[in-house]
Amino acid sequence: MPRYRQTTVGDLKNQAVQRRKITDTKRTADPATMEVLCGELPEGNTTVFDRYASQQPQCSFGLTGVCCRNCIQGPCRITPKNDKGICGAADYTIVARNVARLIAGGTSCHSTHGYHIAETVLKVVDGKTSDYSIKDPEKLHAVCKRLGVSTEGKNDEELAREVTLLAFEDFGGHREEPCRWLDTTITQGRREKFRNCNIAPTSIDRTVVGMLDQTAMGQDSDPVNIIFGGLKTALCDYTGMHIATDLQDILFGTPYPVATEANLGVIDADYVNIATHGHNPTLSEMIVEAALQLKGEAEAAGAKGVKVVGICCTGNELIMRQGVALAANKASQEMAVLTGAVDAMIVDVQCIMPATKALAECFHTQFITTASQVKIPGAQHFDFREEDALETAKTMVRMGIEAYGKRKPELIRIPDVKHAAVAGWSTEALMKLFAGVEPEEPVKALNDAILAGELSGVALFAGCNNLRVTQDESHLSIVKELLKENVLVVATGCSAGAFAKAGLLTPGAYREYGGEGLQRFLDRVHEASPTSTGLPAVFHQGSCVDNTRAADLMVAMAEQLGVDTPKVPFVASAPEAMHEKAVSIGSWCVALGMPVHVGVMPPVEGSPLVYSIVTQVAHDVYGGHFILESDAELAAKQLLDALEYRRWKLDVHRATAEKYDADPAASW
Amino acid sequence: MPRYRQTTVGDLKNQAVQRRKITDTKRTADPATMEVLCGELPEGNTTVFDRYASQQPQCSFGLTGVCCRNCIQGPCRITPKNDKGICGAADYTIVARNVARLIAGGTSCHSTHGYHIAETVLKVVDGKTSDYSIKDPEKLHAVCKRLGVSTEGKNDEELAREVTLLAFEDFGGHREEPCRWLDTTITQGRREKFRNCNIAPTSIDRTVVGMLDQTAMGQDSDPVNIIFGGLKTALCDYTGMHIATDLQDILFGTPYPVATEANLGVIDADYVNIATHGHNPTLSEMIVEAALQLKGEAEAAGAKGVKVVGICCTGNELIMRQGVALAANKASQEMAVLTGAVDAMIVDVQCIMPATKALAECFHTQFITTASQVKIPGAQHFDFREEDALETAKTMVRMGIEAYGKRKPELIRIPDVKHAAVAGWSTEALMKLFAGVEPEEPVKALNDAILAGELSGVALFAGCNNLRVTQDESHLSIVKELLKENVLVVATGCSAGAFAKAGLLTPGAYREYGGEGLQRFLDRVHEASPTSTGLPAVFHQGSCVDNTRAADLMVAMAEQLGVDTPKVPFVASAPEAMHEKAVSIGSWCVALGMPVHVGVMPPVEGSPLVYSIVTQVAHDVYGGHFILESDAELAAKQLLDALEYRRWKLDVHRATAEKYDADPAASW
Repeated sequence: MPRYRQTTVGDLKNQAVQRRKITDTKRTADPATMEVLCGELPEGNTTVFDRYASQQPQCSFGLTGVCCRNCIQGPCRITPKNDKGICGAADYTIVARNVARLIAGGTSCHSTHGYHIAETVLKVVDGKTSDYSIKDPEKLHAVCKRLGVSTEGKNDEELAREVTLLAFEDFGGHREEPCRWLDTTITQGRREKFRNCNIAPTSIDRTVVGMLDQTAMGQDSDPVNIIFGGLKTALCDYTGMHIATDLQDILFGTPYPVATEANLGVIDADYVNIATHGHNPTLSEMIVEAALQLKGEAEAAGAKGVKVVGICCTGNELIMRQGVALAANKASQEMAVLTGAVDAMIVDVQCIMPATKALAECFHTQFITTASQVKIPGAQHFDFREEDALETAKTMVRMGIEAYGKRKPELIRIPDVKHAAVAGWSTEALMKLFAGVEPEEPVKALNDAILAGELSGVALFAGCNNLRVTQDESHLSIVKELLKENVLVVATGCSAGAFAKAGLLTPGAYREYGGEGLQRFLDRVHEASPTSTGLPAVFHQGSCVDNTRAADLMVAMAEQLGVDTPKVPFVASAPEAMHEKAVSIGSWCVALGMPVHVGVMPPVEGSPLVYSIVTQVAHDVYGGHFILESDAELAAKQLLDALEYRRWKLDVHRATAEKYDADPAASW
Repeated sequence: MPRYRQTTVGDLKNQAVQRRKITDTKRTADPATMEVLCGELPEGNTTVFDRYASQQPQCSFGLTGVCCRNCIQGPCRITPKNDKGICGAADYTIVARNVARLIAGGTSCHSTHGYHIAETVLKVVDGKTSDYSIKDPEKLHAVCKRLGVSTEGKNDEELAREVTLLAFEDFGGHREEPCRWLDTTITQGRREKFRNCNIAPTSIDRTVVGMLDQTAMGQDSDPVNIIFGGLKTALCDYTGMHIATDLQDILFGTPYPVATEANLGVIDADYVNIATHGHNPTLSEMIVEAALQLKGEAEAAGAKGVKVVGICCTGNELIMRQGVALAANKASQEMAVLTGAVDAMIVDVQCIMPATKALAECFHTQFITTASQVKIPGAQHFDFREEDALETAKTMVRMGIEAYGKRKPELIRIPDVKHAAVAGWSTEALMKLFAGVEPEEPVKALNDAILAGELSGVALFAGCNNLRVTQDESHLSIVKELLKENVLVVATGCSAGAFAKAGLLTPGAYREYGGEGLQRFLDRVHEASPTSTGLPAVFHQGSCVDNTRAADLMVAMAEQLGVDTPKVPFVASAPEAMHEKAVSIGSWCVALGMPVHVGVMPPVEGSPLVYSIVTQVAHDVYGGHFILESDAELAAKQLLDALEYRRWKLDVHRATAEKYDADPAASW
């Protein structure tokens, strides 16, 4: 079976045939998306599924990473006959450089997000905006404690300023100490490992710039040095993300369990539907507030009110904190427009397909961009500023209300597919859940269940939709396998979206999908610390910028167990990694010591050496490694094997009372 | 005629045929390089000229910029039939993103260089190394004055620390004001333009990271926004480079005219030859010192002494400040090894072809890397630290002395080609030259000559060797045309190297190549301010990191003329732009208002819109633009036309006493 493609365009003669073909080859496992896909498309338009097919076959040099465009003498391509680029760069150099630059790209997205949140906090404490406030002083104090910021005699605003200025120091500035958000959130073992291997970053921005420098023409050609530089850059991704999550929690509240619904069926034809899409809650939180305030105007326009629905990670932010319904994950964003009932789509940053805007033009849907670094020709652009955030949000929502009156009823087709969902499982919320059983040290409840063999371990599901594979399918099939084998699963981003859309977040779903041990464990903790929402099969931890919540959980497990993170039965899977952000997240997961499954092949196959660095050498040095496997069944098996191996090592470790700080790398 | 390739590999059956083919198609205009190229190659080896031929035909998607690999769902390629990527990105989005990321790459190289120099200065003033000292207090005071740093009662170390800490603020940190090294070195008109257009960066590193963020999947799809973001990034390139040049001058001395020689013939078989290659003078200055100190050891080994020769921009740094002979520019770096008489090649950063190391293995040549971000598998690596710089340098030179005894005499073939050269023409040196005529305001001598029609204007020649064209040829043919038409030419980098190797830097060469006006002007200024070295035809201003010297000259001209920079008869040409650094340099030259010729097509042809943005829209907004022309004759004509147009506008301006600060963009 060809690894990268399932359909080609050769025989797709016209759109009708294309549409049939798409259903034939089952491009999606999401019945709502499938229903919309099988319908009519406005003439001349395409969906992401069509465009993926049209791009087949994709360039094999790009797919395997052996095309270099890092100078304008190129492109150079490596073939068996031509084993060097013009400068003499070999396959391993070119592949390593390309991967490292993907990591730099992903890190840039997350850190720019984090930087923006830090700027927002500063505006709040400086009184430049009254639309936001510090909603979670408890989290603020917890972050202060972790950073060593004295809280005595200081009010929340003073503390938040101090924390934010420390965050800016992690982004830039000339320091010799590792970034604080990294250094204060990991184990002592990791701190030493990163310092000894010279991959502890002192500044996010300087490290990213250094990575571009290292991978430029005539610079590094040593693949180990380049890939390890990539891991250093990925630790900056971790740092910037952790800053983003902490400050977002402080500003908007740490998420706790909340009940809602998911999939396209949440779009309600009786309401003005405002779809928020992107990643940054500073915009979407205001949209939710504006929607509430403008209910009257919507009613005057003939609607029952304004309904905000979420797409992609803005959806994940809102489902976590506001219980706003999630309409779609990344590959279904166009489907929301195709329902004909989205009156405005308001977007901020990341994963916004320009095609979604093009499609909106065929409907009454207002398409609104809000970030200076994300403009789409032809879209209505607002320069969204925190200083007048709510007013701007109201203007945008009013555009939706106005558009509501211009709907084309004949184009409305909302699939009747949605599932109840309980989200909001920050690590704090999980600890609260575990605290019923272990009030003093909540994470002990989890570790004990693993040590007792009741649970097999913990898995983080993360990442995107990638059109190379059937949408959501491998997310679902791998997770079901793991749940059956009693793995506690946390999820973020479009992976969490896939689970929400498919009903795995429905209260009580763990009874349907979980093995006996998992059911028993969840029953026990829920009985000791009941929630009003009930428990899902998969615990939604937030958007893709929130992946450090899972890392925090792993670190807490490690510290309670008295081992370094590579010994914790904790794995990660990104069945449909797509964005550069997924590459950087996966890389810091590896540096933290996780076995990380990726279900679509990243561009490393062009160099057996680089392939071995990321799948083996990384493990020898850091205790984590990549599992590159596109077959869902094999992937699940490998993840379970990795958990089993760690449980076995943990038993050995406990039996011999070995100390983790004396742990040589060879013993991972 | 195909635009991008001159030879293909189809008919190159074996190495002997390849070698003949190379001479047939005249891959180089440098007789020394040609002589080496026509000789034997160690079996199984290739030169950059062979590898360029082997890479033909190059991928047209990459060449024209319409291949997107910014997520791992791709690569996507735009064709007439497939006009959108999987996400819906159009040709203009993909091309703009790729160009912007090239600029980010180039900026990263220069700013990392500048950052390293700043760290070195800090080590010097903190007493962490005694191998370096502040050699140019006059420049230090000039920089302090420009930055508004009070010098009263402070010693050089205190001032240098203050300046360096300000430099670090330009790299990172949360500030709202534009970078100081940009803001204090440009005209008031540019300051306002950059602020009004929102492209004045406040931090180098954050801007680069922001550029990667802006060009990631699902981010910006507006090509104007992306390209103008690219210009903002390019202004960071300017800022980082200016910091590098200023601090290098403070640490190693501002260059003044110095006599030396250039081309492969400077390698002397009687000496231990140490080739220094790369870009950063912190290493090479120590090598020069170590070579002096180890003369005795070299003599004991049977040589006449140790001779340091320069390659690429390390060569340019050394030729400018030490009068060290220049052996080769970028495309000839392998030829130095092929002479068989280079005993050690010591490299630092940038433009170091891995192939040069591979070739060194066939000889006795020691290949030594010294920078943590530039390792080459198999090379001897030293962790070069300023703290014990001279000692490390001595160890490396000793490796060369030891290798001297292992030469293979039968492999030695040094072309008897070299030219006398006078280098060291910093803008300060030029001003000193002009001061003979105009002691109060030296630049007036230059401006008056232009206004009087004696000179046609000033041209900066910069950039690399690019194998797509015959090495050095268009540098030489365009510059000769301009000199004939009385253009004062300054040059940097491998362009300056090409001129040095071809005798255009020979004292008195302006008489051979200059038009009557240029000869008269240079005679006059030299008579008023004689140098011991004599004057060349082209004024060497340093390595590629030193291009802001030319910008300083242009700004001085603008201020004396009372106009903004886009009205100054000043053009730039990069006949063989190759590195990402060349793309970023060219872009800030455009933002500063220069017409910038590039002789090899950058990857913009895939989008007529982006092509028009860089060649036309940029001019409307900033007064500068790219001239993309691979024909040397046409390029020279367009550069001369641009100068003529500006002289005419200047006459109009002066006639109408128009004020530059009231100058609308439309009047560029």
